[in-house]
Amino acid sequence: MLFDRVAVIGVGLIGGSFALALKAAKACAHVTGVGRSAANLKLALERGAIDSIAADPAAAARDADLILVATPVAQTERIFLSIQQHLGPGALVTDAGSTKRNVIAAARAGLGAKLAQFVPGHPIAGGERSGAAAAKADLFRGKRVVLTPLAENSRRDVEQVTAAWQACGARVTAMEAAAHDAVLAAVSHLPHLLAFALVHEIAGRADAAQLFGFAAGGFRDFTRIASSDPEMWRDICLANGDELVEEVLGFEKKLREIETLLKAGDGSGLEKLFADARAARARWLSGEFE
Amino acid sequence: MLFDRVAVIGVGLIGGSFALALKAAKACAHVTGVGRSAANLKLALERGAIDSIAADPAAAARDADLILVATPVAQTERIFLSIQQHLGPGALVTDAGSTKRNVIAAARAGLGAKLAQFVPGHPIAGGERSGAAAAKADLFRGKRVVLTPLAENSRRDVEQVTAAWQACGARVTAMEAAAHDAVLAAVSHLPHLLAFALVHEIAGRADAAQLFGFAAGGFRDFTRIASSDPEMWRDICLANGDELVEEVLGFEKKLREIETLLKAGDGSGLEKLFADARAARARWLSGEFE
Repeated sequence: MLFDRVAVIGVGLIGGSFALALKAAKACAHVTGVGRSAANLKLALERGAIDSIAADPAAAARDADLILVATPVAQTERIFLSIQQHLGPGALVTDAGSTKRNVIAAARAGLGAKLAQFVPGHPIAGGERSGAAAAKADLFRGKRVVLTPLAENSRRDVEQVTAAWQACGARVTAMEAAAHDAVLAAVSHLPHLLAFALVHEIAGRADAAQLFGFAAGGFRDFTRIASSDPEMWRDICLANGDELVEEVLGFEKKLREIETLLKAGDGSGLEKLFADARAARARWLSGEFE
Repeated sequence: MLFDRVAVIGVGLIGGSFALALKAAKACAHVTGVGRSAANLKLALERGAIDSIAADPAAAARDADLILVATPVAQTERIFLSIQQHLGPGALVTDAGSTKRNVIAAARAGLGAKLAQFVPGHPIAGGERSGAAAAKADLFRGKRVVLTPLAENSRRDVEQVTAAWQACGARVTAMEAAAHDAVLAAVSHLPHLLAFALVHEIAGRADAAQLFGFAAGGFRDFTRIASSDPEMWRDICLANGDELVEEVLGFEKKLREIETLLKAGDGSGLEKLFADARAARARWLSGEFE
């Protein structure tokens, strides 16, 4: 058994799935959960994701060997501040935030002398459904988890957090926090923004009902991520705004290239762009970049 | 039985599925197919989508009661020109092109005095896979087919084409060709362009391999349509370029709105935009706009 007591702060899709996965792997003895919604915590208890409910993050942290913070990222600093005095000397803290520079800044501000006990992490898994109801033990199976360890972390602590995610079936890699935020801005945050933007654009038109009436399968898949949690995505945008603005500008540049091809009626230019994109996606799907 | 002999020009995903669906519904006695790839036609024959292979569109049209043109749209005029002299007086022609104004122009140019025998149509169904290998009898089940009838069409002919698609399980609506092209530019052609653009943008960067290495499920669904057939999408872009340029400009405007929110760190503005988009998508998924 890797851990005796695990605390999950924010028992949603990610936190709940982490708890279910650790239990399925018999990697911990007891999980306590804490969160903003009593109904959601009750459901997490009923589903066996957690064994007990703590009144607040401080109470959850008190006896825990491993604490996962899996809330929208803007709450992280407040949580660190509230658990800081209650962390045992051997306790480890990690998180599941989709942005890492801001979470590390929050840890520096909130954990003080206990900063070295925090190993930042980001499981690249999820879905547009949220809450403990959507949690599942195999959510992380075969998925990547990026850790962005601090200079202050001990090698043993990083190995322990790695082992926890490996017990969930994940493939763990380490990266600099700034590199993580830049990569995720391109392949995750930008597509989410574009999907939200398209749905918002169409919904705002006078003929929205007719437009939606003829939207089909391509639209459904393209916009699936526009059903993601607005608060979570607000916090990601605020935390990674600089990288995201760069991505949006780069994408607008690409759109203007396409606009030029469209206006010129440049069929071979358009076909080449589409064929190149399709070929790149095929290489990605084949696992070439795993 | 609705038709004795059906000819399918272009036995790909759409043409092959139409043939399979009509046969499954026992709505026709015999399907002949014609296309550019002998291997694809052989596969269509083996899969039972077609019963015979014609040497060219003229030969396929000669004895047919119903002819479906299901090729990339740029080929339509040439096909109309080649079948025009071989159409019997009772034969009906329809198509499956994703753009309608250009197909109608092609029919005016290519079918001459037989224009009234052509009822333009567009099944809003498909997928990123192409060819007879991807065809399936239930592709159109519950899907929309838009007909954009000509003033020259007889009511009986429109009803016959409607009945053919209904036999495939589709829901048939009629619309003006220009309205069709505007609606599809917004909910289909623009999302395809955006997906191609994102993959092309990422594939062109020096760190493309690393970026793709961290792309996950959200990226996969968002970009699924970037695996669509480049020739088909080239032709759609050329045929519907004016509407598509308008859509790209509208989308760029929305992106600049979001850019402003990002730069200002306007969390409540971002959250409201995301929540509004999510709510609109939920109404769409609930079937409110069917």
